[in-house]
Amino acid sequence: MAKQPILTPRAEDFPRWYQDVVAKAELAENGPVRGTMVIRPWAYAVWEFVQAELDRRIKDAGVRNAYFPLFIPEEFLRKEAEHVEGFSPELAVVTHGGGKELEEPVVVRPTSETIINHYFAKWVQSYRDLPLLLNQWANVVRWELRPRLFLRTTEFLWQEGHTCHATEQDARDYSVHILRHVYEETMRDVLAIPVLAGRKTAGERFAGATNSWTCEGMMGDGKALQMGTSHELGQNFAKVFGTQFLTDTGAQEFVWQTSWGVSTRLLGALIMCHGDDDGLRLPPAVAPVQVAVLLVRAEDGAGERAAALATELRAAGHRVELDDRVDVSFGRRAVDWELKGVPVRVEVGPRDLAEGSVTLVRRDNGSKEAVPVAETARRVAEALAAVQAGLYDQALALRTERTVDAASLDEAREAAQTGFAKVAWSSLGDEGESALAGGGVTVRCLQRADGDLPAGEDEDGLVAYVARAY
Amino acid sequence: MAKQPILTPRAEDFPRWYQDVVAKAELAENGPVRGTMVIRPWAYAVWEFVQAELDRRIKDAGVRNAYFPLFIPEEFLRKEAEHVEGFSPELAVVTHGGGKELEEPVVVRPTSETIINHYFAKWVQSYRDLPLLLNQWANVVRWELRPRLFLRTTEFLWQEGHTCHATEQDARDYSVHILRHVYEETMRDVLAIPVLAGRKTAGERFAGATNSWTCEGMMGDGKALQMGTSHELGQNFAKVFGTQFLTDTGAQEFVWQTSWGVSTRLLGALIMCHGDDDGLRLPPAVAPVQVAVLLVRAEDGAGERAAALATELRAAGHRVELDDRVDVSFGRRAVDWELKGVPVRVEVGPRDLAEGSVTLVRRDNGSKEAVPVAETARRVAEALAAVQAGLYDQALALRTERTVDAASLDEAREAAQTGFAKVAWSSLGDEGESALAGGGVTVRCLQRADGDLPAGEDEDGLVAYVARAY
Repeated sequence: MAKQPILTPRAEDFPRWYQDVVAKAELAENGPVRGTMVIRPWAYAVWEFVQAELDRRIKDAGVRNAYFPLFIPEEFLRKEAEHVEGFSPELAVVTHGGGKELEEPVVVRPTSETIINHYFAKWVQSYRDLPLLLNQWANVVRWELRPRLFLRTTEFLWQEGHTCHATEQDARDYSVHILRHVYEETMRDVLAIPVLAGRKTAGERFAGATNSWTCEGMMGDGKALQMGTSHELGQNFAKVFGTQFLTDTGAQEFVWQTSWGVSTRLLGALIMCHGDDDGLRLPPAVAPVQVAVLLVRAEDGAGERAAALATELRAAGHRVELDDRVDVSFGRRAVDWELKGVPVRVEVGPRDLAEGSVTLVRRDNGSKEAVPVAETARRVAEALAAVQAGLYDQALALRTERTVDAASLDEAREAAQTGFAKVAWSSLGDEGESALAGGGVTVRCLQRADGDLPAGEDEDGLVAYVARAY
Repeated sequence: MAKQPILTPRAEDFPRWYQDVVAKAELAENGPVRGTMVIRPWAYAVWEFVQAELDRRIKDAGVRNAYFPLFIPEEFLRKEAEHVEGFSPELAVVTHGGGKELEEPVVVRPTSETIINHYFAKWVQSYRDLPLLLNQWANVVRWELRPRLFLRTTEFLWQEGHTCHATEQDARDYSVHILRHVYEETMRDVLAIPVLAGRKTAGERFAGATNSWTCEGMMGDGKALQMGTSHELGQNFAKVFGTQFLTDTGAQEFVWQTSWGVSTRLLGALIMCHGDDDGLRLPPAVAPVQVAVLLVRAEDGAGERAAALATELRAAGHRVELDDRVDVSFGRRAVDWELKGVPVRVEVGPRDLAEGSVTLVRRDNGSKEAVPVAETARRVAEALAAVQAGLYDQALALRTERTVDAASLDEAREAAQTGFAKVAWSSLGDEGESALAGGGVTVRCLQRADGDLPAGEDEDGLVAYVARAY
């Protein structure tokens, strides 16, 4: 099997490798308007599996889906001071509609806290209406000056959850529930990506939030990627939009809110966390094709046998593609399936079949094994589970290897050149954070020493994870 | 059970009844920017079921989902003359992004033929790449001067399919396949709405198409609603975007294309086709709650029995909600479930239980029946099938009753005041079509006498269905 070196090796130039994978595996292309993105079918199919896994967990958390308008009156954004300050540099503004100049320009939603609170204020009347838990799957637009496909695009797809609660504690608990049981769980169990769940520093908070939780993953080059955030909004939006409720004792109070989102950036995380020099490596849970059955040569009944195996594997519940394009060289096809990241390959050829076996190849570690034909279904199921676990283990091993305990700001900055540095938050503080930022290093999150979530930045004994980040 | 007359009766004022249902059943609200829409959770859940049914059939037709950008350079739209003429009065234009005026204004997609052809031109090289079958689920914007929730909104949600074929015949066959096996089948078997599948006249074609197929439904007031269209685009877009392929004989040819879409307008169709004076009536296939188990009073073990029945019905695969809010009057709750359109209600009260029965109520015909507790699961399953069929039968009966054979233009115009008129297309022609349009009556579609699809407008013996329309 002759492999062409079609991708720039990661060690040589990681960003270029990323671009190569995105292009060669036909995942995405730049849109004609700067910063926008075309998501091609293979990547979109992965996104559909990611969506389904998230959506199920979101609904299990009691949330109902809804849809709010793309267009938001400009004045809505101005109501919350920090929010407008954070988002106005990124807004796309519609000034003409239906052939006329609009009396009031409208913005294309960068996020929907404002417009949703406009409705929450009408819908929430009494404590009986709480908690009110909504989510939407939507596109949002944030004008991006340094776009990178999936990671930072002017338009992206996401889900945004928005909730109202009667008490601050209930809102806090809910924001943590989403962080842990929707985001961290999906990232770990579905995307096979270990993440650090922690608290953002004040400087890294969402514009308008009182607290932001985050899930931070380590990519293949040791840099961090913020993969999802869950925010406590306090009463900030409730106060400016008048979202109040009648308590069970007859008082009028403002609701406590949360908002939380993950986006198509998760596709970038999958590529950069698991990809290798041969291309994408997809966790079986989100692979559009979990098993590629490759017919080597259509001789001595191998074609029929390959087709029968594909049928058997499909019946066992796997997503299977039969590749019987024997007019294309076997090596070329094998390289293509590797590039696309398909977790398991079953190679069916007349020579192996004469010995009663097929070849089973795992994408996570490249292992090849002759497997008796009759055992294929069982062995494929085992291999899929092994790939799902193997990708997680490799990612965790990399993170462990590249996470360094740092005793000072300088040590932290040094360690952050190749991975994460763990440093006492008390030794950094706001000033240390600013100093690091000058060198492109940021505090990704704060955790307690035991990995738990801090109640605030001022707690004793907090650990800061610092890194370069996408 | 005391019913409040909460909805304007349909016979009194159908448009007002529609608004009432949309508001009182909490389906949607107007957005703050004129013409936009908030889709509330109950209606959005229906949309998710509609989407799932469509998406499965679209994938079965060999199509892969993808995503193309919201923003389209203005110049793209100008390339196809009829297309830009049709859409420019409806465009929303972004002139500012990232705090600066844009050098080139961009339009918010009203539909995506142009931007998708920009990529098709790159992706299609040879006959081996054909057919190329893509679809996207997306929001689109068409500035609407007379908005009506779900039916005509400035922003709406839809799917748009776009395909490339090697021959005109293949494109034509595919456009018909989508019309019949995706659209007509979903409308009939899932939404329980009988539709007329036919050909649009030249005047009613999609801007840029060579032929448009349509599915037309009759609403409760006898008016028509265009529920979905499937277009042959010929080589119109291929020629202006240069979408060519190398044939197997080595020639360069332009591809033949189709595009096709259905939208959240289908929610309007469900409301107007099936709704009655008590509210929505949902076909079980798309009802977020198929069975409401209503506890009448929590006495004599009725609460436990109701909960156990709900569990049993859920285990049987139905979507069930247990309504044990006995602090709200039973009549009020029953009216609410009727308003929301839930197909089957199981009322569980101590009096019935003492006789070993519960009451089963069908939403399609209001029938109430005492059913032995032990038979509930079987009877509910039967009732759900009966409601699905019953709603279709009622809609078909109305259409049959309100469709009149007309011998002349005047008779057709008269009949169209209350329903559909069937008239010989040869007796109308373009002139007749224009004359009818003056009175707000349009040719909804052309069919052959046997109901089949015409190959063109000039065929002998074609029948025109004319009606007032939404």
